[in-house]
Amino acid sequence: MSKTQPTVLLTGFEPYGGMSGNPAYATMRALDGEIIAGHRIVGRPLPVSIARIGAEIDDLLHEFRPQTVISLGLAPGEPVIRLERVGLNLADFELGDNEGLTSRDQPLSRQGSAARWASLPLRRIEAALLAKGIPVRLSETAGTYLCNACLYGFLERLEDQAVPCGFIHVPMTPDLAAEAIVRRRHDGMDRLPPPSMSLDLIVAAVRIAISETVSGSAPA
Amino acid sequence: MSKTQPTVLLTGFEPYGGMSGNPAYATMRALDGEIIAGHRIVGRPLPVSIARIGAEIDDLLHEFRPQTVISLGLAPGEPVIRLERVGLNLADFELGDNEGLTSRDQPLSRQGSAARWASLPLRRIEAALLAKGIPVRLSETAGTYLCNACLYGFLERLEDQAVPCGFIHVPMTPDLAAEAIVRRRHDGMDRLPPPSMSLDLIVAAVRIAISETVSGSAPA
Amino acid sequence: MSKTQPTVLLTGFEPYGGMSGNPAYATMRALDGEIIAGHRIVGRPLPVSIARIGAEIDDLLHEFRPQTVISLGLAPGEPVIRLERVGLNLADFELGDNEGLTSRDQPLSRQGSAARWASLPLRRIEAALLAKGIPVRLSETAGTYLCNACLYGFLERLEDQAVPCGFIHVPMTPDLAAEAIVRRRHDGMDRLPPPSMSLDLIVAAVRIAISETVSGSAPA
Amino acid sequence: MSKTQPTVLLTGFEPYGGMSGNPAYATMRALDGEIIAGHRIVGRPLPVSIARIGAEIDDLLHEFRPQTVISLGLAPGEPVIRLERVGLNLADFELGDNEGLTSRDQPLSRQGSAARWASLPLRRIEAALLAKGIPVRLSETAGTYLCNACLYGFLERLEDQAVPCGFIHVPMTPDLAAEAIVRRRHDGMDRLPPPSMSLDLIVAAVRIAISETVSGSAPA
Repeated sequence: MSKTQPTVLLTGFEPYGGMSGNPAYATMRALDGEIIAGHRIVGRPLPVSIARIGAEIDDLLHEFRPQTVISLGLAPGEPVIRLERVGLNLADFELGDNEGLTSRDQPLSRQGSAARWASLPLRRIEAALLAKGIPVRLSETAGTYLCNACLYGFLERLEDQAVPCGFIHVPMTPDLAAEAIVRRRHDGMDRLPPPSMSLDLIVAAVRIAISETVSGSAPA
Repeated sequence: MSKTQPTVLLTGFEPYGGMSGNPAYATMRALDGEIIAGHRIVGRPLPVSIARIGAEIDDLLHEFRPQTVISLGLAPGEPVIRLERVGLNLADFELGDNEGLTSRDQPLSRQGSAARWASLPLRRIEAALLAKGIPVRLSETAGTYLCNACLYGFLERLEDQAVPCGFIHVPMTPDLAAEAIVRRRHDGMDRLPPPSMSLDLIVAAVRIAISETVSGSAPA
Repeated sequence: MSKTQPTVLLTGFEPYGGMSGNPAYATMRALDGEIIAGHRIVGRPLPVSIARIGAEIDDLLHEFRPQTVISLGLAPGEPVIRLERVGLNLADFELGDNEGLTSRDQPLSRQGSAARWASLPLRRIEAALLAKGIPVRLSETAGTYLCNACLYGFLERLEDQAVPCGFIHVPMTPDLAAEAIVRRRHDGMDRLPPPSMSLDLIVAAVRIAISETVSGSAPA
Repeated sequence: MSKTQPTVLLTGFEPYGGMSGNPAYATMRALDGEIIAGHRIVGRPLPVSIARIGAEIDDLLHEFRPQTVISLGLAPGEPVIRLERVGLNLADFELGDNEGLTSRDQPLSRQGSAARWASLPLRRIEAALLAKGIPVRLSETAGTYLCNACLYGFLERLEDQAVPCGFIHVPMTPDLAAEAIVRRRHDGMDRLPPPSMSLDLIVAAVRIAISETVSGSAPA
């Protein structure tokens, strides 16, 4: 890695919730090592662990000192690329993480403010994706599970730095949706199966998001 | 075309409702001319016209005398491949067709029975798609628009023949979902954008459906 | 009961699926014995049992020889009063009935046609409900569980008689929705809680449906 | 009004978006003047106006110096009582307010923090509602329209005071849902009609929310 080549840290969560894969992880792996607009993508996994995620974030920032941070997570039920606007200082989940922990109304950071704005150029990314025919929306909540903890955690640690940082939720891939259909328990509630998006399109969307972020932030 | 090579008639509707394309049409075009398990796919468009669809069905059956008929249509809002079980003798729609006609509680066929069962091997198709990681569901209603009229129309005309016949609804492609996002009018109702599926996956799904149909119907 | 007073048979399903109540049953009880436009409402429960429902329908028709039949069932997840247009000759459910039976792709009637039209004045009922500010929709599928079996079963037995007959699906009541919220298992899928409708409004809606049916069918 | 009787300021938005009413407004009117656990409810309307809402909030706080502030707004499409956890410093809406203004990515407060936590006892309210059979959920976003502006605005002005303050989103009432059904334009997208909740139940829910708030905050 050239010393002067700026780094984009791209994180993707490991599988969780009993699913056989995670498109966030797969997208991170697909883009790891790629060069986008002169920036080197360093892809790294994040554990679905409320106990460990903070230390992992610290380690990644210490190791790579990235110029840009984009994190990826799966949003089951989401039909489109979802650009998160804000991370909340809150962990609240009944679905156990990969170490079996749950959380109820807990702050992520004792002294932390209620919320922190993602600092990616979300409107530019949104426009670029729509121009390419990729469905996308902005979102005012990243949930209260590990994805939000990741977003808030990075934003808190980077608050005094000019490092664009944000989180992108992605839909299930078709194979995960098919898996969910096979596994579902019928409870009499009439529901549609989960929507999905192909991994190729998710990777393309994240590549565009990175490109819009670094080309906008990079001086000529 | 060899005289002895059996024919699968694959229809796909033209664009409608102001959309720039129709994945049903695109899938039909993609598979036209392909040979699947010794069967030749003949792809033909159908007009989104309640006045003309019956004559078009007549003409297609007369011209091709197919051994199998599978029709494709778009179901905006649908997240997965949707295998229709039944066609209803009913036309009822407020969204005008491509000639501006609407319909209210009208039978498609004066003497026709209330409904006709699709005769494709739907459970085999469902299982084959899920095995390939393609999300799918069976459906008890093909709606009351042109798609249902197509299904009912073919089934009525083929009722005394051993010709497997059915209808597959497909999701929007991502570009159409993006188009819908751009065009939407905000009415204050909180709604998710429409789900989508890549054209490649839709084509793969329809190819599997054809293969399961013709390999099952063909004697050794 | 006066000999000349015509009878409306109003059925409501018992609770099922582990729920503590069923608004279809409660509505049937609330209206039992009421006189609407000179017609006497006879409310009777139906068992959620695929093995027993046919005999129950036979018994009820034999005992009451009703001039009108309206059946009620719960549609979990449904937000509005849902007027069923058609019963399908199909039983297909993985959620066990109250005797633990499931069904897969089975016809309800060996010789029966694919589907039968409900014979209530659905458009009049729809208009009357909307005029009273009660949300309603027509539906092309009553599902493939006991509700559909009830509708198809009554329609088949009454096919040669001028007895208006149909099925109305109703939403959960708020207490059942609250119960579902308390019981839910978090699977990571982001879903809204089920919609509901107050029992009072459901009862009012069914009363209007009965009134529209009998006043339309009754000669001056 | 007794000098020593504490005041709950209960606001409700006026109708907007072309709807004929607003259950938030109607609930506010229904509870205005009621005494709950020794607290007097003062109900006041709020304008759906991004230009005027700040001054209205100032005036109300100046006039009533309330011990508790609860604001109500309509969430079309929402099936249950929705307790908002957080207000965002963001106004972003394409649906014009009642003066025709729209907003795009604008902060509500120049110096304000990204978000502020509602200070009602939300978990107690949630538990009390579920115990009474009223469906409810907590929410991490109050949207980016006037409702959120109201919540953020009150929280900002009350930040140094021990005044419990929050926002409750309520579903459409059935009459508004029926109105939406009548008015809808068919665009070919298959969607369920909006869910609703009776005004009586909404009023009961808000009464419980007030009671839980003031009984918890009141010293013996």
